[in-house]
Amino acid sequence: MALDNPFYTPEMQGAYELHSLGRFELEDGGVIPDLQLAVATYGQLNEAKDNVILIPTWFSGTHQTWELVYIGPGRALDPEKYFIIVVNQIGNGLSTSPHNTDGPIAMSQFPNVRIGDDVRAQEQLLREVFGIEQLALVVGGSMGAQQTWEWAVRFPDKVLRAAPIAGTAQNTPHDFLFTQTLVDAITSDPGFNGGDYASHADVVDGLSRHADIWAVMGLSTEFWRTEFWRGIEIPDVTWDTAVEFKDRFLRSVFTALDPNSLLVQAWKWQRGDVARNTDGDLAAALGRITATMFVMPIDEDMFFPPRDCAAECEQVSGAQLRPLHSVAGHFGLFGFEPDYLESVDTILRELLETSV
Amino acid sequence: MALDNPFYTPEMQGAYELHSLGRFELEDGGVIPDLQLAVATYGQLNEAKDNVILIPTWFSGTHQTWELVYIGPGRALDPEKYFIIVVNQIGNGLSTSPHNTDGPIAMSQFPNVRIGDDVRAQEQLLREVFGIEQLALVVGGSMGAQQTWEWAVRFPDKVLRAAPIAGTAQNTPHDFLFTQTLVDAITSDPGFNGGDYASHADVVDGLSRHADIWAVMGLSTEFWRTEFWRGIEIPDVTWDTAVEFKDRFLRSVFTALDPNSLLVQAWKWQRGDVARNTDGDLAAALGRITATMFVMPIDEDMFFPPRDCAAECEQVSGAQLRPLHSVAGHFGLFGFEPDYLESVDTILRELLETSV
Repeated sequence: MALDNPFYTPEMQGAYELHSLGRFELEDGGVIPDLQLAVATYGQLNEAKDNVILIPTWFSGTHQTWELVYIGPGRALDPEKYFIIVVNQIGNGLSTSPHNTDGPIAMSQFPNVRIGDDVRAQEQLLREVFGIEQLALVVGGSMGAQQTWEWAVRFPDKVLRAAPIAGTAQNTPHDFLFTQTLVDAITSDPGFNGGDYASHADVVDGLSRHADIWAVMGLSTEFWRTEFWRGIEIPDVTWDTAVEFKDRFLRSVFTALDPNSLLVQAWKWQRGDVARNTDGDLAAALGRITATMFVMPIDEDMFFPPRDCAAECEQVSGAQLRPLHSVAGHFGLFGFEPDYLESVDTILRELLETSV
Repeated sequence: MALDNPFYTPEMQGAYELHSLGRFELEDGGVIPDLQLAVATYGQLNEAKDNVILIPTWFSGTHQTWELVYIGPGRALDPEKYFIIVVNQIGNGLSTSPHNTDGPIAMSQFPNVRIGDDVRAQEQLLREVFGIEQLALVVGGSMGAQQTWEWAVRFPDKVLRAAPIAGTAQNTPHDFLFTQTLVDAITSDPGFNGGDYASHADVVDGLSRHADIWAVMGLSTEFWRTEFWRGIEIPDVTWDTAVEFKDRFLRSVFTALDPNSLLVQAWKWQRGDVARNTDGDLAAALGRITATMFVMPIDEDMFFPPRDCAAECEQVSGAQLRPLHSVAGHFGLFGFEPDYLESVDTILRELLETSV
């Protein structure tokens, strides 16, 4: 019996369609009996089927942020020119996830999912449902960047261009440890009950601590120093201090989410590694990439720092490093800053105009 | 009745003396009926009493690290030339602390203590016990740097030279939020019992989560990327992976500590602010400083980043920024790297040789 959580509804997230891929075997050994991918599309697939942009989602995110912040007429991700497909990652709460599935994989029984599983599922979806064999661009942020890297390594013939934003091809040890603190904030809550809670609200303490760690690592020292939060506006809520912003914005975002969903995604994030395709040889994995690639770290990112992204970029033939500036750090991805969005558009436009 | 904790003993920490200051009124309104400061001294006070170096301690630390890592013949902090006094901060487990005191302020009843309280207590100690009226140098790291800044602002006539390492005069909002995650990791453990636990071992889960957050913020992305931990050696323990190092080194350090002690220090750290001396006017507070000052941030520090230290340094007349390099980030303070220690010695030597 699926858990009721209003966050994971079309009313909250905007329209999407569920596509069934049937039985789906996972790289870590588990099976999803009927994998449903939640998919949102924008624009029209042209006859040549060569105007496709694929966007995988990030940790805790859905297609909605992309729709509201990055996609639009006149933008780089222009639905009047491109057929844009945002696929919600497995476990994100809209695609098959612990709280929205019945039977043997519900809740605490949900199997481990890897970045490679998402990319294989997306490839199958594109081929079987849309008849798409090639992508003009794959672009994603954070865990979406992990999937973008995985696409470029695993299906080099299908990816013409790739733009991983604020994410790495091989997760770093620091990131692994950071993500573990997010996990432990949730699982240490007695209300979590080993994953078999009656409502996500039972885990509000753990989800709040989870949010509080995000405040430290997801944003940046500069965000807080400059009190950037004073300029952030959302309906019907105000804040006068940093702690109020943390409580009323970040806690309210994260306490609405499903704990098991976050844990499935965190496990996946921690183990993102394109070198799994090449027996652990990262250089060999990156050497497979044929896409034209712009690697786009965010300068104030506390856990996907630009130098880690640059080190990977250097190992990809012809890839270019295109750093983005955001005082918000990793959460710059939410597009608080017009300058940041303009930079993203300029860089993606240049990439899309590159002939391949 | 004081709690038994073998960490806070001369056998573990090296020799120190307890000096009683009697009844001590705190800035936040509380009172310590008989404040005992744990003090270690190195070298001899000369007749002119002008060879004194004062070192306040950092969060969770004692005089021992300074003794083992920074003080020694031929070093900048040379006990053959200077009379070096390390004063353990209030609440650090050796000086009066929640677990080592009886009566009305034991355990959960311990009052809030501020950086200014430590500095006032140290000034009283130096004057009453040692007859010292002037300091050749105050130097401290992290919370020791907070106390160093406070000394320079509060007692400008007494501080000839000052060297705050990896710490700020006014705690940043990011630091406040970071420290709060450390606090909440402990207080969320049911074994913490509102501060009235029977043994620090009852809080091992919370102390472990506390250690795990330190792994992410106390060290640096570069520390983990370069697997610097492979070169760290302690007796009778080994590690083959990053997670093993985190568990066997950091968890073993932090789970030995007293939870209430960490909380007293964290509360103090969060609210460190020299502008409390000048009605909130930071520039006015820093303008009071007459000491010759070298401000020494660590380049890879995740929460006292060099630019925050530089911004304060610029507001002190004649102060110089002398950044240190350490791959270990904030925990570079522990002196894992010979190059780091050589830099510290070179800079402190130059400072001590500056005529004032």
